[in-house]
Amino acid sequence: MQIAVIGAGDASPEEVEAAETVGYLLAQNGAAVVCGGLGGVMEAACRGAKEGGGRTVGIIPGTAGENPYVDIVVRSGLGHARNALVVGSADAVVAVGGAYGTLSEIALALTMKKAVFGVKTWEIDGVFPCLTPEEAVLTAVRAARLSH
Amino acid sequence: MQIAVIGAGDASPEEVEAAETVGYLLAQNGAAVVCGGLGGVMEAACRGAKEGGGRTVGIIPGTAGENPYVDIVVRSGLGHARNALVVGSADAVVAVGGAYGTLSEIALALTMKKAVFGVKTWEIDGVFPCLTPEEAVLTAVRAARLSH
Amino acid sequence: MQIAVIGAGDASPEEVEAAETVGYLLAQNGAAVVCGGLGGVMEAACRGAKEGGGRTVGIIPGTAGENPYVDIVVRSGLGHARNALVVGSADAVVAVGGAYGTLSEIALALTMKKAVFGVKTWEIDGVFPCLTPEEAVLTAVRAARLSH
Amino acid sequence: MQIAVIGAGDASPEEVEAAETVGYLLAQNGAAVVCGGLGGVMEAACRGAKEGGGRTVGIIPGTAGENPYVDIVVRSGLGHARNALVVGSADAVVAVGGAYGTLSEIALALTMKKAVFGVKTWEIDGVFPCLTPEEAVLTAVRAARLSH
Repeated sequence: MQIAVIGAGDASPEEVEAAETVGYLLAQNGAAVVCGGLGGVMEAACRGAKEGGGRTVGIIPGTAGENPYVDIVVRSGLGHARNALVVGSADAVVAVGGAYGTLSEIALALTMKKAVFGVKTWEIDGVFPCLTPEEAVLTAVRAARLSH
Repeated sequence: MQIAVIGAGDASPEEVEAAETVGYLLAQNGAAVVCGGLGGVMEAACRGAKEGGGRTVGIIPGTAGENPYVDIVVRSGLGHARNALVVGSADAVVAVGGAYGTLSEIALALTMKKAVFGVKTWEIDGVFPCLTPEEAVLTAVRAARLSH
Repeated sequence: MQIAVIGAGDASPEEVEAAETVGYLLAQNGAAVVCGGLGGVMEAACRGAKEGGGRTVGIIPGTAGENPYVDIVVRSGLGHARNALVVGSADAVVAVGGAYGTLSEIALALTMKKAVFGVKTWEIDGVFPCLTPEEAVLTAVRAARLSH
Repeated sequence: MQIAVIGAGDASPEEVEAAETVGYLLAQNGAAVVCGGLGGVMEAACRGAKEGGGRTVGIIPGTAGENPYVDIVVRSGLGHARNALVVGSADAVVAVGGAYGTLSEIALALTMKKAVFGVKTWEIDGVFPCLTPEEAVLTAVRAARLSH
């Protein structure tokens, strides 16, 4: 099971904490964390996943600069186009906060008919709003299982 | 000057009419129309541009299927990732209506700090809402000129 | 008709001259020149095409830096992955000289079953060797017409 | 350490055997196998890696169809352009046999200045020819270590 965690590289302390919890709980549920591989929410999700004993994949836009908690790095060199690969590789998506890059990933995920669960993120029709990281992980894991 | 026209492949008659006017006016203003190359809003914008004596570029997701009004076809084969190229190649962006694919293009354009002008499209902070195709083209052309 | 001209950004005077002739003759035959949009062979082919009254498309790896003879610029931001788009968008391919990047384009074109005509380029099984730019253009135009 | 194993989806029994050995030995040396995720050489390398207790990454061109020995699947949807990601994500590359797709990956790897080790593959200047899978893995692992 692969679940994408998306969110800004420049994240607030609350977003970082939420993302770390999301990563930790995904790992505990046996899901690999797929993300954009950089800082902020991406780094926090990876750090959480490693604390939880899980695996992390970072699909970076360039060819270097992944965060230290990335196990497998995909050096895409694709720039912003890599956003499509992050969500395309996921069985479900958890969005934490986020700016326009995250919005593009939410929209791409919905285009691909992936389930998207949001924690204090863009209010877009089709995104399931979750009150807590726990709720987001629970529902995302369930959606990912159903997608197979 | 290259201006992207984005919108759904499955568009309403009103959207088609607005997109055709946008394409026509862009051509009259000397701007090449860049789009996703398929049907709906994309086809209407290309048809309008050809009626206006202009040039059209279609960056298609696959390797075939461009609409008949595309002059230059980029057969990207990139799937949804091609959305980043449509807006990345533009000096400014006009969005007409649209579903999630269009939302992803709006978000990618804003990530790249491109000016986005919308006609009955997603209400996203950063998109300039326009009441008419005429207003969208006028302001987009001005923004494209300033971007150089 | 769209024909790709591929070759190194760092080209010899002979390669530059050959590429310019290729571009000129393609334009005279009504074919748009598709290329990687940068210098060397790419710039020479575009310059020749403009002298011949034709159209040029440059699919650049980054978001800036196209040569001055590019009419339509696709700012792909894809890095080396854009090579697949250059040949994928072509009805036939002419290779002039070239280093590893050109070899990758030749191989990608052959993977996509596009006809490749070479002027002093890599000797790869499947590439039609041509003695002159004139021969390369003649045969490429014929192949492009047959591909439709 | 991530090492790409490249080769045809339609491989000979000798190539399959060589690729399986390469995958097994890479795993024993602590390297993750990165590949195109499909059949033939790619599947054999992944199967070998799992027998050796290692990790495998498949960067597939579409959105489904990875072989059963892929641990992490990147559903790129990029078509042939994904070849750039396979070698771009590697610290060194081992080529086993192969057709034009493999040639494009060899050329892309050399463009990116990655070391490429070949077992009965294309004879391209810059590729280190190896007599056995063992030699290819030994030298590739050494090159990958030096690249950090």
